[in-house]
Amino acid sequence: MALRVGVIGGGQLARMMIAPAVELGLELRVLAEGEGMSAGLAATAVGDYRDLETVRAFAADVDVVTFDHEHVPQDVLRQLVADGVVVHPGPDALQYAQDKLVMRARLAELGVPQPDWAAVRTTTELQAFLDEHAGAGVVKTPRGGYDGKGVRVVRAAQDAHDWLEALADGEALLVEELVPFVRELAQQVARRAGGEIVAYPVVETVQRDGVCAEVIAPAPAAAERLTEVAEAIGRTIAEGLGVTGMLAVELFETDDERILVNELAMRPHNSGHWSQDGAVTGQFEQHLRAVADLPLGSTAPRAAWSVMVNILGGPVEGTLDERFGAAMAEHPQAKIHTYGKAPRPGRKVGHVNVADDDLDDAVYVARAVAAHFD
Amino acid sequence: MALRVGVIGGGQLARMMIAPAVELGLELRVLAEGEGMSAGLAATAVGDYRDLETVRAFAADVDVVTFDHEHVPQDVLRQLVADGVVVHPGPDALQYAQDKLVMRARLAELGVPQPDWAAVRTTTELQAFLDEHAGAGVVKTPRGGYDGKGVRVVRAAQDAHDWLEALADGEALLVEELVPFVRELAQQVARRAGGEIVAYPVVETVQRDGVCAEVIAPAPAAAERLTEVAEAIGRTIAEGLGVTGMLAVELFETDDERILVNELAMRPHNSGHWSQDGAVTGQFEQHLRAVADLPLGSTAPRAAWSVMVNILGGPVEGTLDERFGAAMAEHPQAKIHTYGKAPRPGRKVGHVNVADDDLDDAVYVARAVAAHFD
Repeated sequence: MALRVGVIGGGQLARMMIAPAVELGLELRVLAEGEGMSAGLAATAVGDYRDLETVRAFAADVDVVTFDHEHVPQDVLRQLVADGVVVHPGPDALQYAQDKLVMRARLAELGVPQPDWAAVRTTTELQAFLDEHAGAGVVKTPRGGYDGKGVRVVRAAQDAHDWLEALADGEALLVEELVPFVRELAQQVARRAGGEIVAYPVVETVQRDGVCAEVIAPAPAAAERLTEVAEAIGRTIAEGLGVTGMLAVELFETDDERILVNELAMRPHNSGHWSQDGAVTGQFEQHLRAVADLPLGSTAPRAAWSVMVNILGGPVEGTLDERFGAAMAEHPQAKIHTYGKAPRPGRKVGHVNVADDDLDDAVYVARAVAAHFD
Repeated sequence: MALRVGVIGGGQLARMMIAPAVELGLELRVLAEGEGMSAGLAATAVGDYRDLETVRAFAADVDVVTFDHEHVPQDVLRQLVADGVVVHPGPDALQYAQDKLVMRARLAELGVPQPDWAAVRTTTELQAFLDEHAGAGVVKTPRGGYDGKGVRVVRAAQDAHDWLEALADGEALLVEELVPFVRELAQQVARRAGGEIVAYPVVETVQRDGVCAEVIAPAPAAAERLTEVAEAIGRTIAEGLGVTGMLAVELFETDDERILVNELAMRPHNSGHWSQDGAVTGQFEQHLRAVADLPLGSTAPRAAWSVMVNILGGPVEGTLDERFGAAMAEHPQAKIHTYGKAPRPGRKVGHVNVADDDLDDAVYVARAVAAHFD
């Protein structure tokens, strides 16, 4: 009798759990938001993840519930737990991924290095923070932001006037110092309920327009100390927040050699896609192992360098199938992963992984594949 | 609109096509022999692959038909082709995998090195062959044998008396010389309909009781000449027989340094499982690329050595899940692939792949994982 893993959310992250689930002998079930989602081929239910009864009915037929995204409301999650459902990550951990103010406060308690920050409710409070931080800051809505949405760089309190006005009673915005970073990194770790943790090598992420565009694993020219600190941060957060499953910690590397925590994701994350083809155990397999409480797999790289480039469906002539075919014909060593989505400019429709002993070669091939879709 | 690939047969080979189909964006459909098969999670139909109307109904909803096994009768296959269905490999190729006498005759025409052989209908004919070959031979039923079934080593014609007696009019047995081989090898190639061919490195296969038990890739201590000859044989057969999809050529290496063709399989094959984790493009992905007429992928190894060991469900205490868990805990670098089958002594319930720079380490780990199931 195969263990049944239920994934709430039918996007590409759920889709990419299908392959390792088959090989591990796990039965994957998906509660998709609608028909025709990326993970539609594993969808056993379609419905609203915010509706308790919908989620309850889905959870009743699985052995463990996990997620494609972090948007299931806390009251729904807590009722599942009260019902006796095994939920990984659980609501206590997920609250830190759902609310950036709660996350910042908890990371401060844990002593994890992070940008200066404050909760602000008024232009006066925001201006006071800006005045203390060279007149600039990053304002974030604590909930619901992703891929650059809900994030705004401000030079004056007035720049966030509309968001401040819209705050309900008891709500606040998060403001963070504008970190003088030289590059962005990401640290992936996986944790089982019993406490077992494994860490991947820290990677460099390149963002374009607030969206992850490229990842290089491991982060080039990363000093041993940086690698150790990044891993220690990942482990501290996974333990301190009680994360089960994959945890992605997005990091800033500053020009004075500090590492500061930017964002968290408690699920497989775009910055970890390289591991599907570049590590002994890919992040989707690792997430399934962790949430199914199976022993974790080796995170060792399979090659000196792995490069991931996102494929965005652009306005190019020809169907997506034709473009995939052309890219495959030119680059037989490229591992192309498709999401089963209709192309739109800027929409992630897949990604490509290339592992190679030579970093320049890997970057060249991965970008050349993605260029077929621009 | 995803290309729909229909697989006839619901065993572990069809199951292992699911993972790469998802990533390639192909829609996999399976005609399973019954409920609860390995590939049950992709089964869209259940029925008898020997029944024309069953197969026709299945084929009507897919873009290309391929196979988990070679047992679909020629008349069914030829009717599909007459109906306009795209079938890979087609009946003209498959006949050589279905009938060993037809295969031997065709390989002789192609000039491919193979054991001495003859078609025999009587004890007199069989004895004459044995007398010319040091009194020994291997008798095979031309059709339906696999994993050592339908194969018998004979020292006298009388040893095959029962099989000869059972021959119908026009039927014959195949007898082959008993090859003094030092080891067995296997060559995998993939071919698209348009003619594109790629070859994997030749591997060493270790059989136990007529069943593939272990595979080492590439074949240790294989001279460059041997590697080249094996690849040339694979390419010659794929082209000469018009194979589309994966072709496995089982080979004998003799004590006088010849390579002789033993058996053929026109599908992913146990001797190619190592490639799932040991090559840039695994054989299941490659088969799908070939039959879907997508550009073929790189066959380059990902590590110096890959070792595959079959996992047989033995009489050990504990459930299969417990055994998989224990093996995973001890060997985090092992890639375990499960077939979703109930364990029985001697039944293949999975396999393990280990890739490593050190061959001895890879062999040790792969055997240690499999030993959890003995």
